[in-house]
Amino acid sequence: MKIGIIGLGLMGGSMGLALKKIGRIHNKEINRILGYDKNALHSQQALNLGLVDECVSLKEMWQCDVVFLSVPVDGIIDILAQITPQDVRKNMTLIDVGGAKTHILDSIPVWLRQYFVGAHPMCGTEFFGPKAAFEHLYENNIVILTDLEQSGEYQAELAKDIFIGIGMKILKMSAQEHDKHVALISHMPHIMSYALANATLAQENPQTILALVGGGFKSMSRISKSSPLMWRDIFKHNKDNVLEAMAYFQAKFDEARQLLENEDWDGLEAFMAHANTLQKFL
Amino acid sequence: MKIGIIGLGLMGGSMGLALKKIGRIHNKEINRILGYDKNALHSQQALNLGLVDECVSLKEMWQCDVVFLSVPVDGIIDILAQITPQDVRKNMTLIDVGGAKTHILDSIPVWLRQYFVGAHPMCGTEFFGPKAAFEHLYENNIVILTDLEQSGEYQAELAKDIFIGIGMKILKMSAQEHDKHVALISHMPHIMSYALANATLAQENPQTILALVGGGFKSMSRISKSSPLMWRDIFKHNKDNVLEAMAYFQAKFDEARQLLENEDWDGLEAFMAHANTLQKFL
Repeated sequence: MKIGIIGLGLMGGSMGLALKKIGRIHNKEINRILGYDKNALHSQQALNLGLVDECVSLKEMWQCDVVFLSVPVDGIIDILAQITPQDVRKNMTLIDVGGAKTHILDSIPVWLRQYFVGAHPMCGTEFFGPKAAFEHLYENNIVILTDLEQSGEYQAELAKDIFIGIGMKILKMSAQEHDKHVALISHMPHIMSYALANATLAQENPQTILALVGGGFKSMSRISKSSPLMWRDIFKHNKDNVLEAMAYFQAKFDEARQLLENEDWDGLEAFMAHANTLQKFL
Repeated sequence: MKIGIIGLGLMGGSMGLALKKIGRIHNKEINRILGYDKNALHSQQALNLGLVDECVSLKEMWQCDVVFLSVPVDGIIDILAQITPQDVRKNMTLIDVGGAKTHILDSIPVWLRQYFVGAHPMCGTEFFGPKAAFEHLYENNIVILTDLEQSGEYQAELAKDIFIGIGMKILKMSAQEHDKHVALISHMPHIMSYALANATLAQENPQTILALVGGGFKSMSRISKSSPLMWRDIFKHNKDNVLEAMAYFQAKFDEARQLLENEDWDGLEAFMAHANTLQKFL
């Protein structure tokens, strides 16, 4: 089996390493892992780091049995629009790992839909690019497969085998549900973290203040290091859900401010004690 | 030297362990570590865990050469108000580790001020109580000493020796500066995290949504586990600075919302790229 990876950053590069490690999907050996990245430096780095065996052109990707699309959402939509029926081999499987799914699935030509599986591995780090890739990124994490009943049966099963093979747990849901849920637990918290970073940088002497930071600030600002390019596309393609999630957070932030302004310390303590109960779900 | 610790939770208990480990301050041996906690269960746990050598009454604490006040801010203010001139021995050193300093320093009787050192170790975890204590909590972290020039020279030097002895780096500043800075980098981010937790818990099916969380949400919600009792007092005693810090964050959060609403993706990318620059200060 030949596997192709388009986009050799954190997600794609780590996929290459994870696939190399397992070496086979069920009874099928992985013979070769091909890579493509429009950034020539990234291709070179990916080869040097051993993330893929060979870098090829985008057109040459379609000789693979499985192709991962691990580029920002606009890139995924662009690439899907370029594929012609001649490019597609029998039982070819295209899997995207974009973080916002509805627009991607809406953009796929009907004839191509059966070859396609929409996936969102719920893992990542604040680092990006080929150098951020590591073998264990996917292990023990959840991957959400969206609108899987619209994929071909062969493709759906193969995608599940691959994700289970690299150590992931599978959850199925509709793209709409996915986009709504992840807006709240992933996309919006990134905006919180970026805004916290910018609020701090806007102070008169950020270096003086930042010399004092402890673990709390480090946690809250960690994901403000994340890739602006990748997140731009996610926010673009999940705008309404993200704005709704921002409103949910805003309501609770306002509630806390009100309690402070009213010096309602019992109320504020109850607000925090309620937040503590989150842990029973995690 | 006899050292007393009032409040045997995360901060006090970890102080006991750290002092036991080093065994001496400069040329003075630490002969005994006494503990006091108004919660009898916590006293028992602290003894079982070996955080202190002996639990005594509050009055008996004043036989110590050094006493740490590691209880919530209101508790610190209460205890300081109870100390009488008869309680205080020559060269006695009282050190508080409260997270909001101005109200504490304002509350100290003038005659007691020289015996007192206001400290804020910039470390902690989201866990609390004696069981949360661990030996390495303080190591390699910063401790802020506030208005140190108002402490006696002996007391200031001894406090520095102790904090350096347990592996901390010392920064000096006024209580006002401290309260303003930590409002932004510590107190306010806790409100963000508590509000995020509550926004998620307010959803129709929090368990469904929370089954999907990845590392980003875990980071952003981690400190929402923190002690409501401790934080209640910090917010109470740093209200104005926390409200000001909330306004700084709000301005940037609003900016991001505006960029999203206007579909200004270049602007949003620039907002995120600016946030990335925070890292050069950390």
